[in-house]
Amino acid sequence: VEKRELLYEGKTKQVFATDNQNFRIFAFKDEATAFNGLKKGKISGKGVINNKISSILMRVLEREGVPTHFVKEISDREQIVKAVSIMPIEVLVRNVAAGTLSKRLGLPEGAKLSSTVYEYCYKNNDLGDPLINTSHVVALGLATEEELKLMLKIAGKINDVLSACLKKINVDLIDFKLEFGKTIDGTIIVADEITPDTCRFWDSVTRSKLDIDRFRKDLGGVEEAYNEIFNRLQSL
Amino acid sequence: VEKRELLYEGKTKQVFATDNQNFRIFAFKDEATAFNGLKKGKISGKGVINNKISSILMRVLEREGVPTHFVKEISDREQIVKAVSIMPIEVLVRNVAAGTLSKRLGLPEGAKLSSTVYEYCYKNNDLGDPLINTSHVVALGLATEEELKLMLKIAGKINDVLSACLKKINVDLIDFKLEFGKTIDGTIIVADEITPDTCRFWDSVTRSKLDIDRFRKDLGGVEEAYNEIFNRLQSL
Repeated sequence: VEKRELLYEGKTKQVFATDNQNFRIFAFKDEATAFNGLKKGKISGKGVINNKISSILMRVLEREGVPTHFVKEISDREQIVKAVSIMPIEVLVRNVAAGTLSKRLGLPEGAKLSSTVYEYCYKNNDLGDPLINTSHVVALGLATEEELKLMLKIAGKINDVLSACLKKINVDLIDFKLEFGKTIDGTIIVADEITPDTCRFWDSVTRSKLDIDRFRKDLGGVEEAYNEIFNRLQSL
Repeated sequence: VEKRELLYEGKTKQVFATDNQNFRIFAFKDEATAFNGLKKGKISGKGVINNKISSILMRVLEREGVPTHFVKEISDREQIVKAVSIMPIEVLVRNVAAGTLSKRLGLPEGAKLSSTVYEYCYKNNDLGDPLINTSHVVALGLATEEELKLMLKIAGKINDVLSACLKKINVDLIDFKLEFGKTIDGTIIVADEITPDTCRFWDSVTRSKLDIDRFRKDLGGVEEAYNEIFNRLQSL
């Protein structure tokens, strides 16, 4: 697979075409953003670390039968992924109250949810990625009800697999964001990345944040947190 | 049934106890509010008109087999209703884009939705009655999934019944808000009111607004709009 033209420059990744229409190349950047792009910065070495973390976690998922876009790492910052058209819906999975959920429902950060919360957000920067529900998705034609059900089922499986895996390295999976894509043959698979940019990881004992919230909230020790997650994952 | 002490003073209604614990008395006020109580005013005669409109529409629903709290009108501003504990979830039903849906999804006001949109909002003034979904409802313990399904089914039936009824008087039912309550024996029934305060009614031909949006948006002719709806309903 040979790298070709830049298809898309995102906030934290570049996406390149390859000489094979079934594959693309992701290049992870050090840029970090928060609050729908209002806050911008860099986390030194993040691109390299996130490339490795997402590769590890996508491999864990594949091993457990979850279909993902991941193919292989090809350099420090780059990985080959399957070409997909991204579904315009983010799926958020929440085990513990934090972030926008805490604010929306008035729940203290860290409150265990009595059952897993699943949220859909409409991927639309101008609208601020608003929370939507199944009937919005169907009325807007963003996906069919069957596609949503499949995405929800995959999201639940991922929550089970990753929570168990992270528990072994003393990390609690507080919440995470998933993106899905449709391959050329129409199959829905997990796309994008699974990293401290897209998950909340808390140390199981100290409850210390090991994710992008350190950047969002100016807590310091951002690089160290990303490294800590990577180091623990390597010990798996 | 005799009126007893004031149980609750809401933005637009007073709720009184009666000498029978199964019944309460609603007294409709002329006060109007918008934007979660930020805008306040009076619509002269609204209390009388809304008492009559809600009575007519609740009777239409009862006739079609929808269980409601309505018992009978007893004066210009008052009606007897069944005593319920109000469910902490508002159900919004939308046929055409308007209001917060237009804003949330970037849809022009008046755009026909390709399928009916159902929304749940958590009744919590401090949080601004946020949009929530089934998994939030369950995690917060606001209702069971079965109760939600029943509420949704009733909401769909009400949409069918009221849309058809209003069509006869040249009114389009754009969207509406429902509240549900549990009776002493645990049955879920429609509560609160169904009026131009809680529905968007548009003239089918001119698309003129015949509801609280005239107050919200300072369009003038507010009293006339409420009267117009009442007059047309009387011709049914």
